Amino acid sequence: MHEFRYKNNQLYCEGLNIAEITRKVGTPFYLYSHKTLIDHYRKLKTAFEKVNPLICFSMKSNSSLAVCKALVREGAGLDVVSGGELYKALKVGVNPKKIVYASVGKTEREIAQAIRVGILFFNVESLPELELINRVARSLKKKVKVSLRLNPDVAAKTHKFITTGKKENKFGLDFTTAFNLFLDHRWFSHLDMAGIHIHIGSQITESAPFVAALKKTVTFIGRLKRRGVKIRYLNIGGGLGIVYSKEAPQTAKDFAKAILPIIGRKGLKVILEPGRFIAGNSGILVTKVLYVKETQSKRFIIVDAAMNDLLRPALYHAHHEVLPVRSSWFLATGAWGKADVVGPVCESGDFLAKDRKMPPVEEGELLAVMGAGAYGFTMSSNYNSRPRVAEAMVIRNKLYIVRDRESYKDLIEHERIPKILK
Amino acid sequence: MHEFRYKNNQLYCEGLNIAEITRKVGTPFYLYSHKTLIDHYRKLKTAFEKVNPLICFSMKSNSSLAVCKALVREGAGLDVVSGGELYKALKVGVNPKKIVYASVGKTEREIAQAIRVGILFFNVESLPELELINRVARSLKKKVKVSLRLNPDVAAKTHKFITTGKKENKFGLDFTTAFNLFLDHRWFSHLDMAGIHIHIGSQITESAPFVAALKKTVTFIGRLKRRGVKIRYLNIGGGLGIVYSKEAPQTAKDFAKAILPIIGRKGLKVILEPGRFIAGNSGILVTKVLYVKETQSKRFIIVDAAMNDLLRPALYHAHHEVLPVRSSWFLATGAWGKADVVGPVCESGDFLAKDRKMPPVEEGELLAVMGAGAYGFTMSSNYNSRPRVAEAMVIRNKLYIVRDRESYKDLIEHERIPKILK
Repeated sequence: MHEFRYKNNQLYCEGLNIAEITRKVGTPFYLYSHKTLIDHYRKLKTAFEKVNPLICFSMKSNSSLAVCKALVREGAGLDVVSGGELYKALKVGVNPKKIVYASVGKTEREIAQAIRVGILFFNVESLPELELINRVARSLKKKVKVSLRLNPDVAAKTHKFITTGKKENKFGLDFTTAFNLFLDHRWFSHLDMAGIHIHIGSQITESAPFVAALKKTVTFIGRLKRRGVKIRYLNIGGGLGIVYSKEAPQTAKDFAKAILPIIGRKGLKVILEPGRFIAGNSGILVTKVLYVKETQSKRFIIVDAAMNDLLRPALYHAHHEVLPVRSSWFLATGAWGKADVVGPVCESGDFLAKDRKMPPVEEGELLAVMGAGAYGFTMSSNYNSRPRVAEAMVIRNKLYIVRDRESYKDLIEHERIPKILK
Repeated sequence: MHEFRYKNNQLYCEGLNIAEITRKVGTPFYLYSHKTLIDHYRKLKTAFEKVNPLICFSMKSNSSLAVCKALVREGAGLDVVSGGELYKALKVGVNPKKIVYASVGKTEREIAQAIRVGILFFNVESLPELELINRVARSLKKKVKVSLRLNPDVAAKTHKFITTGKKENKFGLDFTTAFNLFLDHRWFSHLDMAGIHIHIGSQITESAPFVAALKKTVTFIGRLKRRGVKIRYLNIGGGLGIVYSKEAPQTAKDFAKAILPIIGRKGLKVILEPGRFIAGNSGILVTKVLYVKETQSKRFIIVDAAMNDLLRPALYHAHHEVLPVRSSWFLATGAWGKADVVGPVCESGDFLAKDRKMPPVEEGELLAVMGAGAYGFTMSSNYNSRPRVAEAMVIRNKLYIVRDRESYKDLIEHERIPKILK
């Protein structure tokens, strides 16, 4: 559930009328509901309370400082994947002992920075990375905790770009390699090989692949134990699916119920890395209709948001509900019919919805692109020299701008024309 | 042809050694060859010299001020698709009478701005847009030139996202609608409906679809003439393909030879809007190998550039050659074998090359991702909180930084944490 609901035919974010918010912010913009964000965090926390997990919000899904700060205040940790995310994590004042760091391509500088601030541990993806972290730790005279990421070779039913737990993916280590590395842990003088990490993909709506992967993992931990290697952390990653359209994803409760019997009571500190589950339905993208173009074969609703603002439809063929901010349209008599909702960017890949049943829509009307809180703004670009949009958040029925809209001037801020060309 | 060549087993950009350039700039970065850029512009100019065309470089392919400035100095005009591009076009001092403005989603503010600066004309995509431009022109007391974009319903063999001339696309007007609009031109009191625009797609390697579309268009112009409507401008768009891999695209000369007999000697001012043809092979993305990860099923070459830096492989399944900056690798004995060249971003869609035959590669080595001059930096984002990379240009054997690398601080420049969360 989320806090974007109709009241008197008007779409609200919590207690605020979105049409009124838009008058202040202009279009397009991302709008977050603080309450929805926190509610989703708490749902997961409650579902897993028996094991008192550390829930590290996955910043790649939404690295807005306001979003991260809101969650950190609630007790969340952060899952970072780059030096930039680590920088932002520290800006919101998270306890470094609640930061886990994952990425197949950590640079030496990023590793050193993370060790210096004292993060909880690295999720490690390969042998050469393990060696590099050990080397950097030695040079900094620190002992550093790491988790090895297992690739459970489990196929999760989701878009091929966001499945990550198959052996053809670039992620993680196969079980045999990982097993041998744990046994050889003395080779890595400055590492404390304390944990195991798995992450099988993103937007997974059923528990079966998680159960399969975790069963394999727990057996693996047992085998290690018999060889004298004690695992203390089990990082079960993220990947929980949400409702974009007609999915009926498992709830946090279902999920916990399915996997707690497998991972509970083993003396393991459980870590979760949810991103989409917490942020996905906490945000929408508000856009204005610029033109309605009727052609012989199609109706095109041309809006002022584009693929540079929300890449998911073009990149993942993702479905986002598109709702009118004034729902009187729903009730209007008039021909409903299929339409493409498209942006101003000059390519056919620039669409927000395709062949979607839409009410009659007029120029100037506002549309809400739902479920845009995760992998929305974080993936946005300046393609077509479009300034990036504003981000706003409703907190206890008050509106806050959490990111200013970019200006044309921002577009050239870092550019220089060599004198020789002048 | 381009100016990225091996000399003594080292890859050079014009006269400069790329490994040495990299020591100054750091990785990853985009590197442009000024000479290649200008050469391609001149090739097109020469091929079409009989009709003395206006060549408007398509800024969406590369809106670097330095790139645009270099072309404008050569006499090029600019093809813009947004207020942001118009802003940048004016920054490089192009004569506004050499600017054409296309986009399905021009806003009222953008239209007014373009009219005020006095651009050559708008390419118009729909009836409501035509009405809006007329309204804005009237309020500004100006007469404004427009071209109507025809949708020739021609299938160009290219990626579905970048074909734009089919009737299911959001672009242009069908012939019947356009014909009637031209006849009704008196309805649009403040418009001078002077031109026709066609653009059938991008990265098209053969002349047949252009020929087909232009024949239709010329017939159309003849029909209009018989009804007393005289077309003065023929904007034939862009879309010329380049060599990314094993394509054998038409040369500028071939292209001109195929279409000049159709469009020449008709008293039409010919306009071209090439982007990729000019910029594509003028730029590369230089990246460093971070890790080589051997798994049971694959070799992964993990580099420090990622999908946020170059989106084309993920978005269009585009092929970019990946070459070692030190070609001694080519000659090295040692197992060549297939590999995925992937970035640090945490998703499986983050790759620069898949199942590519690659020489043995070591950590720290440099790779050049070729053909990255168009739709490269312009589509880049801060996904995974990765600062955007630097851009550099070699001009007459000297190196110039034309865009500074972003810092972590830049990532949060526009953000605010509401006090209530502190």
